[in-house]
Amino acid sequence: MKKRTTVLGAGSWGTVLAAVLAENGHAVTLWARSHRIAEEINQNRTNQRYLQDTKLPDGIQATTDITKALDGAQLVLMVVPSQAVRETAEKAAPHIPADALLVHASKGFERSTLKRISEVLEEECHHHRGRVAVLSGPSHAEEVIRRSPTTVVVASKDERTAKAVQSFLNNQSFRVYTHSDVIGVEVGGSLKNIIALGAGLSDGLGFGDNAKAALITRGLAEMARLGMAMGAEPITFAGLSGVGDLVVTCTSRHSRNWRAGNLLSQGHTLQQVLDQMGMVVEGVKTTQAAYDLSNRYGVEMPITNQLYAVLFQDKDPRQAVEDLMARGETDEWNDMVQKSPLP
Amino acid sequence: MKKRTTVLGAGSWGTVLAAVLAENGHAVTLWARSHRIAEEINQNRTNQRYLQDTKLPDGIQATTDITKALDGAQLVLMVVPSQAVRETAEKAAPHIPADALLVHASKGFERSTLKRISEVLEEECHHHRGRVAVLSGPSHAEEVIRRSPTTVVVASKDERTAKAVQSFLNNQSFRVYTHSDVIGVEVGGSLKNIIALGAGLSDGLGFGDNAKAALITRGLAEMARLGMAMGAEPITFAGLSGVGDLVVTCTSRHSRNWRAGNLLSQGHTLQQVLDQMGMVVEGVKTTQAAYDLSNRYGVEMPITNQLYAVLFQDKDPRQAVEDLMARGETDEWNDMVQKSPLP
Repeated sequence: MKKRTTVLGAGSWGTVLAAVLAENGHAVTLWARSHRIAEEINQNRTNQRYLQDTKLPDGIQATTDITKALDGAQLVLMVVPSQAVRETAEKAAPHIPADALLVHASKGFERSTLKRISEVLEEECHHHRGRVAVLSGPSHAEEVIRRSPTTVVVASKDERTAKAVQSFLNNQSFRVYTHSDVIGVEVGGSLKNIIALGAGLSDGLGFGDNAKAALITRGLAEMARLGMAMGAEPITFAGLSGVGDLVVTCTSRHSRNWRAGNLLSQGHTLQQVLDQMGMVVEGVKTTQAAYDLSNRYGVEMPITNQLYAVLFQDKDPRQAVEDLMARGETDEWNDMVQKSPLP
Repeated sequence: MKKRTTVLGAGSWGTVLAAVLAENGHAVTLWARSHRIAEEINQNRTNQRYLQDTKLPDGIQATTDITKALDGAQLVLMVVPSQAVRETAEKAAPHIPADALLVHASKGFERSTLKRISEVLEEECHHHRGRVAVLSGPSHAEEVIRRSPTTVVVASKDERTAKAVQSFLNNQSFRVYTHSDVIGVEVGGSLKNIIALGAGLSDGLGFGDNAKAALITRGLAEMARLGMAMGAEPITFAGLSGVGDLVVTCTSRHSRNWRAGNLLSQGHTLQQVLDQMGMVVEGVKTTQAAYDLSNRYGVEMPITNQLYAVLFQDKDPRQAVEDLMARGETDEWNDMVQKSPLP
């Protein structure tokens, strides 16, 4: 049955999720900040900046008017950069119908407060406390739009919300699994961008696949360590929003964070890299946030520390990767188990 | 201090591990079955069939005489195809010094008995019961030989053995971690080849990175499920011999099992693929063994089942991948936790 849905944010992922909803037969209003992008979507059914010549399905109506965008929405999907979530939520909150499902697909932490995105949303959207959902998993937008098989998870503390969101988005090529561990799903989806920056560095410096596999493995361990300290279930990190998203982000040519790390390895400054990318690279702010979170929770995060030093303290990238390889611990069991806050 | 070491098996991995030992200053005798290869190594310091023009270090002496090869060995490293382990061990056992360290780096199960490789070794080499070690981890030979940074694990029930082996092999670019979970390390290293066959199929059929990440994630879960049923520790699968080895095998162009899956996707029969590869593809026999093990232990292994159907029951590869994607379960938590034998 056709329902009214709203996507807030017309970047690549927001636009593609709008396309998934439209293909599933729903009416979709896509809110864009840019007039040019909204017009282009309505007139040409393209979003050149993010998706080149890809034709978007009918049934997506773009607008820059957030009040109109949210009118009568039964599902609201927020897909804006993590640092724009609070501002967007403030604007949107008064217009989100109280019985609408509220989902986000942002990856990161609020830099100033170190809060998870669903925490920010629940603070701004009082009606939705305890039932915000998060969408995450290994899902490059470029592949989803051409219906390449993709699996994602939708997590909410409220099981009915997770299932309802699943039924909006699920289809033959876009498989949606439900999950209850919001913290684990959000932390996994956010921290993997740090490891992807590291993977881009490692590849750019000419280290091989063996080195990258080690980085991914150690990266997963430190993601899980921080996640568990924050209240996540360890097994969530073995799932689609942990291992799955980590692997795709570290090994796919589509990954922005990998590309940023790769550019950094060539001697560009962080500012030059960000200028050249012209898109938000979530891993940069996430590295800062995770650095602070690791101190707050007293969790060892050697990869995050090295990335922090490269990004913000002018550390030589090659030295950083070599320092990671030369770590003192030589018993994998001790390294993985005894440093974790697991009982 | 220079020690006497013996490597049994002059394939790519055996030859490269011999090179690591030689670079670490040890005297290495490399036992080859083929006279031609032994002569080529001694005369040209190359092993063209497996390593093209790569120059091997001095300090490796090749021989086809297993008795001579083992004379005075302080470390014996067996690196033969999994189905050749028992036969090689039978021949070697009487000549292995009782106080030598015994390590293997084979990945698979003995097809006829479904035994792990260390079980086979301990049956044949009575003196080494309880202290055989296994070497595993993300380590393409082609990268190790050019000193690209690599991390591996050495696991043994006997901690002193693991540490002693570590001190033989460890160096600046080849980092060796110790581990105590022999079962987990062996099962992880073996089963990942099944998932790599599946990844090669998926890539060959034009499915994207999202699909492959899903396959890797689900693959890790079924590896851990069988491993736990066999007595492994779950966290081992999150380490170098689990996630690490799985990722490198599924995403690197160096992987034999990935290449075999890729060839299969192009419509070749299994026999044609094996003829074309001209090397042992461990994943094939491992799929048979894991299929039987999953029945023996009552563990669900959907990827293994689909691969088994493709390899041995003429199932269409595209149908197999699509059947995997279309699985019924839609709650990731249930899928991962409730099907596992974890308490």
